[in-house]
Amino acid sequence: MATSGNITTAGTGSPCGACKFLRRKCLSDCIFAPYFSSEQGAERFAAIHKVFGASNVSKLLLKVPIHDRCEAVVTIAYEAQARLHDPVYGCVSHIFSLQQQVDKLSGH
Amino acid sequence: MATSGNITTAGTGSPCGACKFLRRKCLSDCIFAPYFSSEQGAERFAAIHKVFGASNVSKLLLKVPIHDRCEAVVTIAYEAQARLHDPVYGCVSHIFSLQQQVDKLSGH
Repeated sequence: MATSGNITTAGTGSPCGACKFLRRKCLSDCIFAPYFSSEQGAERFAAIHKVFGASNVSKLLLKVPIHDRCEAVVTIAYEAQARLHDPVYGCVSHIFSLQQQVDKLSGH
Repeated sequence: MATSGNITTAGTGSPCGACKFLRRKCLSDCIFAPYFSSEQGAERFAAIHKVFGASNVSKLLLKVPIHDRCEAVVTIAYEAQARLHDPVYGCVSHIFSLQQQVDKLSGH
């Protein structure tokens, strides 16, 4: 199990899902380890890697305080999935749709 | 002026904003040229490059039909700007906020 304080990989020595996907050694200070489990994290990371790139996400996370990184990963994963599902609009289609609902409900 | 039909760079031979930012030669089939002007496109491209990476965006645009690429660039630029402005939530903060408005207006 990964922990977010002193970032460590599984006691089993398994790489995190991101390092598994990237086929690299998962070091003890791996920035992705707390957020991508060895079991299911690789698939989640694949979408993020395809849309944003591992290096860009790593740089972005380094700029975010550690207690905000989990939320950052959640929203990045959401954006990545939405962009793969809808390459033209990505999650911006949700914004358009919600804006229309707000306008309709407001009677505009 | 860049055109989106037969992709060409400016008659002046100026590179598009993306190639200007990337400091590379802007070829006649540059995928970015129709969407990033030589004058103001570099700044717009900088945000996209920082968040998504030029290579990922280029691959994404190649998968999108040419008549949808302008919209794709607009939404990618929007997501990139939002992520630079709010590294934790990016444009997902707009989705949360709109969802709250919808819930409130619906009386939930």
